[in-house]
Amino acid sequence: MSKAKGEWKLINWIRARTRVGHPRVPLGPGDDMAILSLAREDRCLLTVDALVDGTHFDLAKASPRKVGYKALAVSLSDAAAMAALPVAAVAWVALPAKRTMAFAKQISRGLADAAERFDCPIVGGDIVSGSGPLSVGTALVARAAGVKPVRRSGARPGDALFVTGTLGGSLLGRHLCFTPRVREARRLAQTIRLHAMIDLSDGLSTDLAHLCEESGVAAEVEARAVPISRDARQLARKDGRPALEHALNDGEDFELLFAVGPRDAKRLLTKNPLARLRLTRIGRVTRGRKVTLVGADGHRKVLEPRGWEHFR
Amino acid sequence: MSKAKGEWKLINWIRARTRVGHPRVPLGPGDDMAILSLAREDRCLLTVDALVDGTHFDLAKASPRKVGYKALAVSLSDAAAMAALPVAAVAWVALPAKRTMAFAKQISRGLADAAERFDCPIVGGDIVSGSGPLSVGTALVARAAGVKPVRRSGARPGDALFVTGTLGGSLLGRHLCFTPRVREARRLAQTIRLHAMIDLSDGLSTDLAHLCEESGVAAEVEARAVPISRDARQLARKDGRPALEHALNDGEDFELLFAVGPRDAKRLLTKNPLARLRLTRIGRVTRGRKVTLVGADGHRKVLEPRGWEHFR
Repeated sequence: MSKAKGEWKLINWIRARTRVGHPRVPLGPGDDMAILSLAREDRCLLTVDALVDGTHFDLAKASPRKVGYKALAVSLSDAAAMAALPVAAVAWVALPAKRTMAFAKQISRGLADAAERFDCPIVGGDIVSGSGPLSVGTALVARAAGVKPVRRSGARPGDALFVTGTLGGSLLGRHLCFTPRVREARRLAQTIRLHAMIDLSDGLSTDLAHLCEESGVAAEVEARAVPISRDARQLARKDGRPALEHALNDGEDFELLFAVGPRDAKRLLTKNPLARLRLTRIGRVTRGRKVTLVGADGHRKVLEPRGWEHFR
Repeated sequence: MSKAKGEWKLINWIRARTRVGHPRVPLGPGDDMAILSLAREDRCLLTVDALVDGTHFDLAKASPRKVGYKALAVSLSDAAAMAALPVAAVAWVALPAKRTMAFAKQISRGLADAAERFDCPIVGGDIVSGSGPLSVGTALVARAAGVKPVRRSGARPGDALFVTGTLGGSLLGRHLCFTPRVREARRLAQTIRLHAMIDLSDGLSTDLAHLCEESGVAAEVEARAVPISRDARQLARKDGRPALEHALNDGEDFELLFAVGPRDAKRLLTKNPLARLRLTRIGRVTRGRKVTLVGADGHRKVLEPRGWEHFR
């Protein structure tokens, strides 16, 4: 696409720094398309994510490098949610006209941080300038690599529901530097049989509703079991809302929520294959359509999907 | 990623209309990633493009449906430039907050127009709202399908340079409804040996410079031979600039520029395999680094890359 001079300068800077000779990238940036090697697989997985200043991050608080990191990390988290192995990604940036080259380079560095950490080279991109706020996005190709992709739709009544890590309060900063659970998802898929999985981007209440809807099931969550993060407790002290609400609704935890059969649930409770990452059984899959929250006192209420957008 | 209610409503509308059961799409929209079948190939090609209102289109003149069409068509044109066969695409839209659902649906319809016309289903996407101008983009996966991807870097001294169609003046409207030369590129690649190819997005002067740079060669263009479009002549009458300049520099023609050996050049001149689409020999590849324009009177001058952005 047509480009201004500054954009070409930036593109050339990025190309000069782009790792070449990656075994999975027979042809990297600089041509009309990149070529990816899928290692004898004849299928691939594809996702796309877009982030906008003021909605998914706030440049008043987030460095451009962290924004770049997050832009690729959210797509890597999609790959984790399918238990897929990232192959490569492309990125685009819509730059506000007033921003400097140094600013743009920091975004590129942040993208490279995530690319390197998860061995997912960025093989192409597009840079445009406009009158609007900063917008950054990525599209990512992944492959199954010996693990059947785990969909949202396979949960069955009787399954146990687990989440990784702790939830809530990501707005305090974690939403910019979270670890997409790519390795953990692969590990889980190689250890047990994952019936259904999703990454927690919109918040547990909303993402569990998605998983239930896709699977045609209902679920019960035990309030006592929900792993509340320190950030959620800190936010609760600030705003007076219960920490549990933050854990259920804040979103952008980018942890994994998954359903497994009773036998695999026991195995996970006996020995956590993720070693250092917390794994918590938060409830179970039932027949029906709604998600129920069971309080510590046994009181039951419908858990409405209340995942919300951070910056509005 | 976290979404507002209106965005979910729109996503559900799009999902309900998304073609399912496409043989190349074992899993379409609605999960964390889509799954694509590559028909026994273990490589794929990947590209991404982003369009912004005020730079790549002007909503004062372009309908949202045409903008949607263009967003996918530019990525399809990248596939054409590699002589690759599109498999599927993902799209994202950054919607200005004040725009209506009907507006967003028109963009989606435009994307679907291009998807259907080129059998390239849209298998996922992201919709975000923001304070900025409309921005639409796509990432596209393609496959080689029996044709070695044609790079920009294979032109050799002695090659003939050809372009498809006619050039210049796309701003009069063609830049919104052009035909990505996917079929034509495949046809050419199956008929002759394409040494190098690029699609004309930035304008002949700039894109030929890219091709020469990547191939490490120079080129001569015969001014007399450049196929000038009616639009270029019309613009020339309006603004008093020579029509040839429009043809050389306007950009967004999305025609193909390619280099072939002398024998294949003769074959193309004897019988145009594209039947209804004009095919013009515009010059030749030489040793060196610069692109020279040879006037009708034999006068030679350096052809500077002057492709520019339409709406600035």
